[in-house]
Amino acid sequence: MALPDPSLTYSELVTTPRLYLPFERAFNSGLTVSLSREQSHYLRAVLRLREGTIIRVFNAQRGEWLASLAFEGKKDATLQIENCLRDAQEETGPWLLFAPVKKAQTDLIIQKAVELGVEKIIPVETKRSNSQRINLERFEAIAVEAAEQCERLTIPVIEDIVPLHHVLSCWSEHEDALSHQGTVRPLLLCAESGSALPITQGFQEHAKTQPLPAILVGPEGGFERSELDALAQLDFVTNIGLGPRILRAETAVIAALAIVQAWCGDWQMSPPGRR
Amino acid sequence: MALPDPSLTYSELVTTPRLYLPFERAFNSGLTVSLSREQSHYLRAVLRLREGTIIRVFNAQRGEWLASLAFEGKKDATLQIENCLRDAQEETGPWLLFAPVKKAQTDLIIQKAVELGVEKIIPVETKRSNSQRINLERFEAIAVEAAEQCERLTIPVIEDIVPLHHVLSCWSEHEDALSHQGTVRPLLLCAESGSALPITQGFQEHAKTQPLPAILVGPEGGFERSELDALAQLDFVTNIGLGPRILRAETAVIAALAIVQAWCGDWQMSPPGRR
Repeated sequence: MALPDPSLTYSELVTTPRLYLPFERAFNSGLTVSLSREQSHYLRAVLRLREGTIIRVFNAQRGEWLASLAFEGKKDATLQIENCLRDAQEETGPWLLFAPVKKAQTDLIIQKAVELGVEKIIPVETKRSNSQRINLERFEAIAVEAAEQCERLTIPVIEDIVPLHHVLSCWSEHEDALSHQGTVRPLLLCAESGSALPITQGFQEHAKTQPLPAILVGPEGGFERSELDALAQLDFVTNIGLGPRILRAETAVIAALAIVQAWCGDWQMSPPGRR
Repeated sequence: MALPDPSLTYSELVTTPRLYLPFERAFNSGLTVSLSREQSHYLRAVLRLREGTIIRVFNAQRGEWLASLAFEGKKDATLQIENCLRDAQEETGPWLLFAPVKKAQTDLIIQKAVELGVEKIIPVETKRSNSQRINLERFEAIAVEAAEQCERLTIPVIEDIVPLHHVLSCWSEHEDALSHQGTVRPLLLCAESGSALPITQGFQEHAKTQPLPAILVGPEGGFERSELDALAQLDFVTNIGLGPRILRAETAVIAALAIVQAWCGDWQMSPPGRR
């Protein structure tokens, strides 16, 4: 079985199926990797791939590799790892803090946040939250699928839900909030009422400083006055506005993340492999 | 029955139900308006409003007004128009050209485009389109619901689907493309391959000139080479990139519209009635 030409064109590359392999152990050229029953089912029954098909596998530690598919028995599969397409690389991005809303919208928020390159997702509980519980396993499955589809090498960290005041009170001490010469990560509060700067003004001062901002989007019905007052006391918080219309939570998340990426994130780069 | 205090707070205002009244005839203070069976059903059975409830009605010609609900028989309803909340005003915005994708994603594109303030939506047929037909009535119903929810006064114009090359060939002659001292509306092609400028660079030159750009998002699988070649010949077209990840069509639409609005659209403004 022949490997594809190493000078894969862009369109050949992006149509090669892509599978996240969450291995702790390294994979390397020549290694054979057994797939889980779920992954085998996905490749054999969902994608209906034939034995010998070349796919791509990736994870944050090892980057992206070509691999060829072999079947075992009626249901299982293994992968023979071939050559490396992309080395592992750090993928930094904005953070997202959001109050979970209805199921379909929340799923969309997770999927789109991954596509838009978030580094960390922190679901928060607010006073008007419709939901105090999340299904972390479901969120992670959505994130893996989105990462496979959008050419990321990493899966964002998704934390369990915490009360908003808890995240805020330990913001500066948060494991990653402090970085780059002790600069605290700015938090952009997407506000539909109160005194908010247009988003382009709101983060101009942070535009070229690392770390990238976190954005905070509230539940349907917005934040309570007491929450807004508490947020106003914090010097790392800037209220930003997203225009004259009232946006649904998922629209605000996508809009704010896109704007952050376009102006101070990685949207100066082209997709990998583009010619 | 008392009208709400004229100094409605922002949160009182945005929780007052809002109904689009597509009347050709003007409505005015004191006028009684009969609702259609569908609208009556929506207010009585879906929202479960009581007789005498104050709601808001709006359209592009008359602006936004308060009105009180009265029942007629078991199923119908009328509205007594009260005072004007907002005068009619011109709502200009970017245009959206997109190749319809799967149903759920296409519906999402229409809803989000309305929320993000598009002025006109033109579904286009491309060589790799999955869909050559659209349900215009369905699109319009989604647009009305989104406009009611997001505080717009206008419903964007939604055109029937046309071949891409047809829109391009008559771009300069398009009824609204020419405006403001004969400046042709720029078209931003969201490109995932080929030579594209990062979006912030791609429309810098157009940033402060009216009319606002149109954005063009292709189908799954992108445009064919011949389409890209034809687009490259047109001096009103700029290829813009949306970063290193591959975005789904609906994500590209929302991201590009948000960025256009933030940088040269109406996102310098606050929601109406905000204090």
